[in-house]
Amino acid sequence: MSRLILALDVYEREDALRIAEEVRDYLWAIKVNWPLILGSGISIISELKERTGLPIIADFKVADIPNTNRLIAKKTFEAGADYLIAHGFVGRDSIKAIQEEGEVIIVVEMSHPGAKEFIQPTVDKLIELANEIKPFGIIAPATRPERVRYIREKVDKDIKILTPGVGAQGGSAVETLKAGADYIIVGRAIYKSKNPRESAKKIWEEIENGA
Amino acid sequence: MSRLILALDVYEREDALRIAEEVRDYLWAIKVNWPLILGSGISIISELKERTGLPIIADFKVADIPNTNRLIAKKTFEAGADYLIAHGFVGRDSIKAIQEEGEVIIVVEMSHPGAKEFIQPTVDKLIELANEIKPFGIIAPATRPERVRYIREKVDKDIKILTPGVGAQGGSAVETLKAGADYIIVGRAIYKSKNPRESAKKIWEEIENGA
Repeated sequence: MSRLILALDVYEREDALRIAEEVRDYLWAIKVNWPLILGSGISIISELKERTGLPIIADFKVADIPNTNRLIAKKTFEAGADYLIAHGFVGRDSIKAIQEEGEVIIVVEMSHPGAKEFIQPTVDKLIELANEIKPFGIIAPATRPERVRYIREKVDKDIKILTPGVGAQGGSAVETLKAGADYIIVGRAIYKSKNPRESAKKIWEEIENGA
Repeated sequence: MSRLILALDVYEREDALRIAEEVRDYLWAIKVNWPLILGSGISIISELKERTGLPIIADFKVADIPNTNRLIAKKTFEAGADYLIAHGFVGRDSIKAIQEEGEVIIVVEMSHPGAKEFIQPTVDKLIELANEIKPFGIIAPATRPERVRYIREKVDKDIKILTPGVGAQGGSAVETLKAGADYIIVGRAIYKSKNPRESAKKIWEEIENGA
């Protein structure tokens, strides 16, 4: 099974469906974010699912009170999503509200400069939270493999680590997997490629040979 | 001008438009959240705006990296929203990316139990962030007027305080305004009322007489 996730950050329905179909053979799952949903409507999730047969991860970084998180989760899973990404920062009751509706993936670290202000100083507490409530997985950036290694040591073995930041942002797929990641999330290096299928295949081969 | 904001947390387009029109005379603005957008599409924002003539606040609690925040903001403001609510805990670069597209309102405190874990211990740092980047306003819950008073003392005078939690969650509109809030956000006490217009009028009168 592939360990590659496509971050499908294009904003037109037709582009999204075309690219997803072209590269599906090399993927484990497809991740969608709000800009695509705002452009295409939530129905794009079930369309992608039908056309590719792959799991869909809704990267909505949900961060609201428990009742609102629950309602967002309900609508997202009803629309066909298999996993919903949420922030641990809003506390465990907000995450548990999502888990009542379906599988959750928690953000425990981010890699943009602003993440240093609040997110990174709380990584250990966010890992504790993950170990307690047992989400399907956690998100940790591939741009710093030493952080992936640190997080892999602290987080329960049955919680998957999904890492964005490979490719355009500079992270290496093989290094990140060696550091303990379970899945690699790649966006621009595939969807902005002149030949998305070739680019996906190349990353897939890199993963298969190197990991 | 009214100081009342309706949290329009209904999930059907028809209900949303009907209630908004019924109560518009007593409002300053209407706040919408993801569940309504997922049910009705982003076009509900411009429909609400056209039917009521009121400012629309998109309560999306955006919490992503700068580039994704920018794209969400772009689509939200293009859809007609006047203000976009975002989390400060993702850092100032993520907020500044929104400010390049339009007016932002930052969450500095939340009132559900899980907020004690990460959000509440960082309130002072979130207020500092607000004072530095000067958003239109900040969100702080009405359920604890002493916290509104504390935040009002620390946050710059030209930054508005918007407070949810009045009515069904137990906060008092008059107490909250006396503590320093600029706007009161009311949801269920209006949209779940048998007579939303009467309920909105009553809260509006309470504000006018008491504040």
